[in-house]
Amino acid sequence: MLTVYGDHRSGNCLKVRWMLDRLGRDYRWVETDVLTGVTRTPEFLARNPAGQVPTVVFDDGRVLAQSNAILLHLAEGTDWIPTDPFIRAQMFEWLFWEQYSHEPYIAVVRFQRLLAGMAPDEIEPRLIQRGYAALDRMEGGLAGRNWLAGEAVSLADLALVAYTRVAGEGGFDLVPYPAVRAWIARVEAALGIS
Amino acid sequence: MLTVYGDHRSGNCLKVRWMLDRLGRDYRWVETDVLTGVTRTPEFLARNPAGQVPTVVFDDGRVLAQSNAILLHLAEGTDWIPTDPFIRAQMFEWLFWEQYSHEPYIAVVRFQRLLAGMAPDEIEPRLIQRGYAALDRMEGGLAGRNWLAGEAVSLADLALVAYTRVAGEGGFDLVPYPAVRAWIARVEAALGIS
Repeated sequence: MLTVYGDHRSGNCLKVRWMLDRLGRDYRWVETDVLTGVTRTPEFLARNPAGQVPTVVFDDGRVLAQSNAILLHLAEGTDWIPTDPFIRAQMFEWLFWEQYSHEPYIAVVRFQRLLAGMAPDEIEPRLIQRGYAALDRMEGGLAGRNWLAGEAVSLADLALVAYTRVAGEGGFDLVPYPAVRAWIARVEAALGIS
Repeated sequence: MLTVYGDHRSGNCLKVRWMLDRLGRDYRWVETDVLTGVTRTPEFLARNPAGQVPTVVFDDGRVLAQSNAILLHLAEGTDWIPTDPFIRAQMFEWLFWEQYSHEPYIAVVRFQRLLAGMAPDEIEPRLIQRGYAALDRMEGGLAGRNWLAGEAVSLADLALVAYTRVAGEGGFDLVPYPAVRAWIARVEAALGIS
């Protein structure tokens, strides 16, 4: 049985849990509170030198990190990865965009507000501005579409919904984003987490 | 013939050029100077709403962005993507790690020093510290190994070498990183860019 080291408040970790649940896989979840410094201990760093969660350890001891890499591995051969090469490439585009242009703003601001207890005026304005730019990009990308890549739910939707659905916890206002809000509801229904 | 909109000073753009060259593909390179604001024009944003290079436009007008997504699409079915599922997952882990934990520090500091003309003491210390943390992670990952994922060169090496080989232009000292330096030479040789 594989083991997931994850923090239940982290969208990156929940991605992995949702995927395992949807695939009906057994797993062991080891709650790993990132605020305690446990991911910086020698024991944890021996497992994952990047000191990040989620970290997955397979039966044979092999270790995999990076939420979207874990998703791609778990979902191999399933409908969560489009078979059409170009639609699959678009899914990859969203997955990399998520880690570069969305998570560092939407998730980081939420972390600062919700977990680090920072006040609204303590948040770097650049982070908020770029978070809204990411939401703008998603609203445009979802115009007239149900899903981010192709005509079916894919890992792109699973990965992007993780922090988008809780953007409000970072103070982001989703009211001006009707396409994003409708999409969140669709993806949550597809994941059985609504 | 596909068209690449790219800035020749950008490692993310060079990744795409190197891949096309290694695969012997024809392409049109449209030099796109990111410092001029051309990627923020309505014309460019109509092509890629994220306003980023590299952006690839295929013969049929379809557009793909995000350097690592472009690499995965171009390299599909070639030796640059490992066939073993777990080694392929490790390649993905490095590709996502590159965009999240390496590029935002190594490449950003280089951009600030080399292209934005900032002095060493104008660089945010946190960026330098995290850049060195990324180099530490690579040095550890390359201990006793020739390549990042598995026993052959892969997209993980191509993607990571792009900014690692020019880290010195951002002021990073690679002398304490012998495994990284030896790996850079190996990857450059594999790419024919040494």
